[in-house]
Amino acid sequence: MDARNIAVAAVQMSSTPEKAQNLAVADGLIRQAVAAGAELVALPELFNCHGLEKVYRENAEPIPGPTTEFLGALARELGIYLLGGSILEGEPGAERLRNTSTFFDPSGELAAVYRKIHLFDVRAPDREYLESRTVAPGSEIVTTKAGATTLGLSVCYDVRFPELYRLLALRGAEVLAVPSAFTLQTGKDHWELLLRARAVENQAFVLAPAQWGRKADGRWTYGRSMIVDPWGTVLSTCPDRDGHALATLDLGYLDRFRAEFPALANRRPQAYDW
Amino acid sequence: MDARNIAVAAVQMSSTPEKAQNLAVADGLIRQAVAAGAELVALPELFNCHGLEKVYRENAEPIPGPTTEFLGALARELGIYLLGGSILEGEPGAERLRNTSTFFDPSGELAAVYRKIHLFDVRAPDREYLESRTVAPGSEIVTTKAGATTLGLSVCYDVRFPELYRLLALRGAEVLAVPSAFTLQTGKDHWELLLRARAVENQAFVLAPAQWGRKADGRWTYGRSMIVDPWGTVLSTCPDRDGHALATLDLGYLDRFRAEFPALANRRPQAYDW
Repeated sequence: MDARNIAVAAVQMSSTPEKAQNLAVADGLIRQAVAAGAELVALPELFNCHGLEKVYRENAEPIPGPTTEFLGALARELGIYLLGGSILEGEPGAERLRNTSTFFDPSGELAAVYRKIHLFDVRAPDREYLESRTVAPGSEIVTTKAGATTLGLSVCYDVRFPELYRLLALRGAEVLAVPSAFTLQTGKDHWELLLRARAVENQAFVLAPAQWGRKADGRWTYGRSMIVDPWGTVLSTCPDRDGHALATLDLGYLDRFRAEFPALANRRPQAYDW
Repeated sequence: MDARNIAVAAVQMSSTPEKAQNLAVADGLIRQAVAAGAELVALPELFNCHGLEKVYRENAEPIPGPTTEFLGALARELGIYLLGGSILEGEPGAERLRNTSTFFDPSGELAAVYRKIHLFDVRAPDREYLESRTVAPGSEIVTTKAGATTLGLSVCYDVRFPELYRLLALRGAEVLAVPSAFTLQTGKDHWELLLRARAVENQAFVLAPAQWGRKADGRWTYGRSMIVDPWGTVLSTCPDRDGHALATLDLGYLDRFRAEFPALANRRPQAYDW
């Protein structure tokens, strides 16, 4: 077995507006994933608080803050890499927040911070959701080391923008993290499709923890947290309940696949007239 | 019904090294598609000659040449838009050719020429295929009008490169053409996946005619010519035989979808540090 291999878990949960409750649930699910062998555990988008806009403003936190202290302590205690899917970052009551992903190493240090670049703004007759009313977009593309591999960070709606994942792959990402809270309507047709496409076109693993179930705002989330390999094979999926998807990422396979089928090298940047 | 709507067909065939035979088959299949209502007909990659490298060099043609004259005459006679999937372009015996797509309007005029940008080079232990041994890459991104809509051109292996389709969409493409000859091994896992992903992420129709069946070089092609809508729904698929997929593209739906779910407008080009 390749010494670079790493066992990863995508935790699935159904967060509420009650932060203390969500952190207790996350704590239990992270410990379950570690007991099952995970060395890197990823939580979904907005794992510490999911609800209405007002709740987001009330529960926003600075970084460092209570939630990142919780994550860092847990990473250190368990000796794992821990991706805090995302939280709303900002001073309580601030007008516009950030949707921010944090990554901790096994010593409990905050190793990377990514702020969601693409915001989910939909104005259909039957539903309207304007993330940009609450959140300001990030602008920095972030990769970070996890042992001997490199993780590329993103959040949920980002997955519709192939530019971001290509740029992450070009910066060396071998594992693309997509912590999410996809809606049921879009998730049923686009969740697995886009995750697998990002894996295939970038010849990378995809680690996608998700919210599931009905939310405080009445919307249903899609769930189906999953881990995808560079061929697009779904290695593990979490069914509709609290739990996790778990897989050992075979990084030797990734190296061989990229060498034999050099699609990243076959790019033609000179033709891409942005 | 929106006056911009257009009925399109993706012709599926199994081309051989015999050019005259392939053109006769294409002629029959195009007429069948038009009889079924198609106003725009698309042929697969290398529809006029599929086989070994030697055959490609012997059958290459300049543009204009016999095959494009055949296509132009047929477009004029039938009063249709006609996409000549691709042919190998060049003087007979030339060392490196182009894999070239041609597009004709209902007057029989050659309206657009696209030369495949990304070449399929694979070096696996169990199979090697180096398209770049025979073909030189194109470098120009091409869109063209088809009635009241805009077509974006590409060929086969291009579909692994989301950059190209994004650039086509940004140049106004509403229909992405992907004439192909996918292999069975890659097609079974990547064909529908990547076509649907390109449709969804660019909120565009995808028109994908394909080669099917066993080829002169012993390889199997995947077939499953298909037409996909901007939501990623497969509107029509051709089973494993000569024939076509057919659908009327609802361009009013495309307009509404792009207005309500403005994913193209939600891009953040300022963050894409190429």
